[in-house]
Amino acid sequence: MSPQLTVLFVLIYLHCHIALGSDPDPVQDFCIPNLKVGAILTARLDILPCKNATEVVPEDFVFSGIRLPGNFSDTGLASIPVSPAVFPGLNTLGMSFARVDLKVGGINPPHFHPRATEIVHVVQGQVYSGFVDSANRVFAKVIEGGEVMVFPRGLVHFQMNVGKSPATIFGSFNSQNPGMQRIPSAIFGSGIDDELLEKAFGLSSREIGMMRRRFFPKKVKS
Amino acid sequence: MSPQLTVLFVLIYLHCHIALGSDPDPVQDFCIPNLKVGAILTARLDILPCKNATEVVPEDFVFSGIRLPGNFSDTGLASIPVSPAVFPGLNTLGMSFARVDLKVGGINPPHFHPRATEIVHVVQGQVYSGFVDSANRVFAKVIEGGEVMVFPRGLVHFQMNVGKSPATIFGSFNSQNPGMQRIPSAIFGSGIDDELLEKAFGLSSREIGMMRRRFFPKKVKS
Amino acid sequence: MSPQLTVLFVLIYLHCHIALGSDPDPVQDFCIPNLKVGAILTARLDILPCKNATEVVPEDFVFSGIRLPGNFSDTGLASIPVSPAVFPGLNTLGMSFARVDLKVGGINPPHFHPRATEIVHVVQGQVYSGFVDSANRVFAKVIEGGEVMVFPRGLVHFQMNVGKSPATIFGSFNSQNPGMQRIPSAIFGSGIDDELLEKAFGLSSREIGMMRRRFFPKKVKS
Amino acid sequence: MSPQLTVLFVLIYLHCHIALGSDPDPVQDFCIPNLKVGAILTARLDILPCKNATEVVPEDFVFSGIRLPGNFSDTGLASIPVSPAVFPGLNTLGMSFARVDLKVGGINPPHFHPRATEIVHVVQGQVYSGFVDSANRVFAKVIEGGEVMVFPRGLVHFQMNVGKSPATIFGSFNSQNPGMQRIPSAIFGSGIDDELLEKAFGLSSREIGMMRRRFFPKKVKS
Amino acid sequence: MSPQLTVLFVLIYLHCHIALGSDPDPVQDFCIPNLKVGAILTARLDILPCKNATEVVPEDFVFSGIRLPGNFSDTGLASIPVSPAVFPGLNTLGMSFARVDLKVGGINPPHFHPRATEIVHVVQGQVYSGFVDSANRVFAKVIEGGEVMVFPRGLVHFQMNVGKSPATIFGSFNSQNPGMQRIPSAIFGSGIDDELLEKAFGLSSREIGMMRRRFFPKKVKS
Amino acid sequence: MSPQLTVLFVLIYLHCHIALGSDPDPVQDFCIPNLKVGAILTARLDILPCKNATEVVPEDFVFSGIRLPGNFSDTGLASIPVSPAVFPGLNTLGMSFARVDLKVGGINPPHFHPRATEIVHVVQGQVYSGFVDSANRVFAKVIEGGEVMVFPRGLVHFQMNVGKSPATIFGSFNSQNPGMQRIPSAIFGSGIDDELLEKAFGLSSREIGMMRRRFFPKKVKS
Repeated sequence: MSPQLTVLFVLIYLHCHIALGSDPDPVQDFCIPNLKVGAILTARLDILPCKNATEVVPEDFVFSGIRLPGNFSDTGLASIPVSPAVFPGLNTLGMSFARVDLKVGGINPPHFHPRATEIVHVVQGQVYSGFVDSANRVFAKVIEGGEVMVFPRGLVHFQMNVGKSPATIFGSFNSQNPGMQRIPSAIFGSGIDDELLEKAFGLSSREIGMMRRRFFPKKVKS
Repeated sequence: MSPQLTVLFVLIYLHCHIALGSDPDPVQDFCIPNLKVGAILTARLDILPCKNATEVVPEDFVFSGIRLPGNFSDTGLASIPVSPAVFPGLNTLGMSFARVDLKVGGINPPHFHPRATEIVHVVQGQVYSGFVDSANRVFAKVIEGGEVMVFPRGLVHFQMNVGKSPATIFGSFNSQNPGMQRIPSAIFGSGIDDELLEKAFGLSSREIGMMRRRFFPKKVKS
Repeated sequence: MSPQLTVLFVLIYLHCHIALGSDPDPVQDFCIPNLKVGAILTARLDILPCKNATEVVPEDFVFSGIRLPGNFSDTGLASIPVSPAVFPGLNTLGMSFARVDLKVGGINPPHFHPRATEIVHVVQGQVYSGFVDSANRVFAKVIEGGEVMVFPRGLVHFQMNVGKSPATIFGSFNSQNPGMQRIPSAIFGSGIDDELLEKAFGLSSREIGMMRRRFFPKKVKS
Repeated sequence: MSPQLTVLFVLIYLHCHIALGSDPDPVQDFCIPNLKVGAILTARLDILPCKNATEVVPEDFVFSGIRLPGNFSDTGLASIPVSPAVFPGLNTLGMSFARVDLKVGGINPPHFHPRATEIVHVVQGQVYSGFVDSANRVFAKVIEGGEVMVFPRGLVHFQMNVGKSPATIFGSFNSQNPGMQRIPSAIFGSGIDDELLEKAFGLSSREIGMMRRRFFPKKVKS
Repeated sequence: MSPQLTVLFVLIYLHCHIALGSDPDPVQDFCIPNLKVGAILTARLDILPCKNATEVVPEDFVFSGIRLPGNFSDTGLASIPVSPAVFPGLNTLGMSFARVDLKVGGINPPHFHPRATEIVHVVQGQVYSGFVDSANRVFAKVIEGGEVMVFPRGLVHFQMNVGKSPATIFGSFNSQNPGMQRIPSAIFGSGIDDELLEKAFGLSSREIGMMRRRFFPKKVKS
Repeated sequence: MSPQLTVLFVLIYLHCHIALGSDPDPVQDFCIPNLKVGAILTARLDILPCKNATEVVPEDFVFSGIRLPGNFSDTGLASIPVSPAVFPGLNTLGMSFARVDLKVGGINPPHFHPRATEIVHVVQGQVYSGFVDSANRVFAKVIEGGEVMVFPRGLVHFQMNVGKSPATIFGSFNSQNPGMQRIPSAIFGSGIDDELLEKAFGLSSREIGMMRRRFFPKKVKS
């Protein structure tokens, strides 16, 4: 391929990262991203061109990937986020979805979504579930199969399976990409300056070091 | 009570109908409507003053009223909308929820929500489910327990239980009050001029009359 | 043309379908789509790159295509929607326009716009005009030349010329692409499952069949 | 009336000035302000409580006050803004309207609307019409009966009847209260410090004084 | 005062908690809250009625309370948030402000604002400043007097004075009430269940207990 | 380069002008525009593709170009706008910034930002500062070092250094591209028809001519 064509491909590749600027009202019925373009470019694309209307099929608006739990983490949590990356039909429509499973005693650690309110629907299990408001008050309660709870936009929330059987929860969000920050790894596993963390949490240098090792992503073979 | 006080109560009653102007970002963590005021005034209130922060309790953010199906209609549909009117915690947060049950063969007739996208999550059953776009194309498919489907904002959609057991579906919306228009009753049960309907649907005066009787709300003792 | 170039053209063509994500505040004075690119690609484009500022001309902000009525349908309706596709200056500005003419006795069948409120301005004629709210109440009235009426976002509305001369109406919308669903054709001309429609409207299989034939798009030579 | 009741009336009066915070998606079908409350309180109210749904009538959604031109100013301009203050049905729906008439040679001086894009529809006449963008380029053109022009949100625009007969124009806005600043009176008739104006426009103290006298609101019998 | 009047006062008090639903475009030039009403009611008010336009004064749009640093905390931080509660002119305008001072070595612990992006402007000092993104990457840098940094909406950020003199920083937000959650006190000082925290952070019951004592608000006389 | 490639380059160049449609909530943490693409194309780009996440560096979120005043104009004003064009980190985040310096007696002439509210923070100096509302009332006051003032979205505002030393002001905006129209040059330096200006301001043809010469951009060598 000629150098000029290479430049073109690079340009087009970069193009595909054009950001959808916002989450408000759509200006068309829908916009199914064209994943084939992504496939050709072998790259994760932030936004994709819409499929030609005639190529859109009912399957674009259906997602079947949350029939079963995801893979469980050490804390007994299996979480499957459903965003336009895996469910193209959501693109530009201002919503996304998630399945969360908790083993007995499993937890969903304190985290928040910077860009969305979340409604959680406990389908089975007994789940201690709550959030913290801007005045550091906790609103928490054990909710059971069939109940829903709402976590206001951007506030830290958490869950723990306090029942005697696995719990299954479905969450819906009013953003197609709510984002997420899990407090333990965002704070201790991200590389914030040690001194700052020591002062912020009143911990010793050694204690911070332990937290770091616990949450730093690449503890493989350390 | 003096006439002046009566005037005051009327004024305050009317006040309570002040409209929440919009569905976008909240400007506070939450605003739990004070339902006691509504109780005193014995009136459905469009918007309610926020509870004092110290009176807010975890229960305000939890809703337990959709553990069981609602009452079934003639078409085998039981639908429970969950808006701030029954679940105060949703107020100002830009989301709402619903439970829909369908008997075997039951349908959720063509309808739409003027102010929201909907994600439906089929928890059990086999449901023929779809929507129509602005170009009158239908995107429909039988979806099963564990699958989700998205209906873009404002577009007509519908469901029918095509399985051999009852179906249960949960819907979430990106508006605290998505609104709803069921096509059969909105068109034939609302009182639109007969001549217009005859011309619009190519039906005779007698046929329109039959549709009217079928969908007009007060057929009690007719 | 080499295969590689073909791939490039395909990529670029698809690019042009990148959706304008929303209808809110613009972030620049204006963005006139570059229709020449569309012409080269011989494709209707959902969104177009902005013209270079120096190529923008006053004519980009003026539209002259609604001086005369459009083509009349069987129901005596001629409608000309004015969106950025024909009036580039509207792009990103959150508004669009339409001209509607009704012959004597002509109707604009029940329809709605999923993404906009509409203000209609009757320039001449006597027009029975109304909408249905979420509680299936009709708000309808004969309005005359010089009067305006508002149809709230997403609610079904309709019009019929009840005067003795042709009627001319101009509509404006607070979305650059309000969308439209005409109830008769969206319901009966779109391919929704027959059984569902029979149950929804209480009609026989034969009656639904007749409705279908009436509203199905391709009745050419049937 | 007792002092306590007086305090109550004052409180309620002030309440009525609660601001509608924004112009985006409504969260209900409509909200017709209750003007009777306003009448009782003899005060212009910024926002009004919604009427009880059962009191809403079709007339609430129709406005008849722009069949005839308004009163003409010295510059040959008659302008009738149609906001929720006079047309209650617009409340919370994100749109408003206006009628503008220009005598032969009459002008609509340079002005802008801080919160809306405007589409103008010239119903009759020949109108030199244009706007200025952020780079001080003018986009202006003579438009005629049947043509529409768009003025992007917040940009200065202007009109002059350059034809031989009166001109009638209808404007629609994507805000229920677009606001307006007419440049001559906002700058010279508002009381900005003289020295600042002299420096800004390169005019002498005497010249600024003349401008002031020309545009200051209360020149009655001075 | 009669019981009826007491009820009225209670009603009106509650009224004042009506929530401003959102942060988007204003629908009027401004709305200065009437703080006198608040004074009468001796209550913190979430939203206040607008002042009568004729009572609005230039001082309503000016704030003088950040000329000097606020009170310093144990971590060497003095922070003065400037919201409509103290600066009425900000009401409905979608922005707020803050002054932050840091002693030598002082820190602003990891925190985030659930409803706003923040631009910080370092007026003097050398400040290690950064944020964590959704993928747990840290973007941090020492910035100096005269530099600005942006923290994207809802993401955890932090600051530490690494220079040899006090640092002064001004922050602006695109929400009138951005909210704030300081991680150490939101997590350890709010009352989240101990077991959940132990599992989330891999800490022992004793360690969590120490963290609690450190961050729990009322350690007075413990 | 072959003609086909030239066409491609033109297409891609135009692509880069795709407009970010709005200023509301981001749907991702951030989107750093890829300025290298801009460099290749030697063109000012309205929107740029996002950088690959792994290429984003802390420096993308820091701006150092306002440590010193900009170049002073004839009216003693030096203004440095900080938009995503120079500070890529702001892209999609809904905010921008500016530095304004005023010599003794210098003015910032009446102007407005069509798409943003502005908070100004006077760091040093005594500045007569104010705005005009829709009713042509001026709200102006001399503010000093350490004070902030807010200018509501879209309203004309102005500043003059009335102190005895230079003034330095920092402004922040709730739009990434607030836009600006300076009244003197937008009105008299843009090419609006003379007759319209004469009538609008009550000036003679000669006087308008003088204003034009004063504010027309190309007075080089006149």
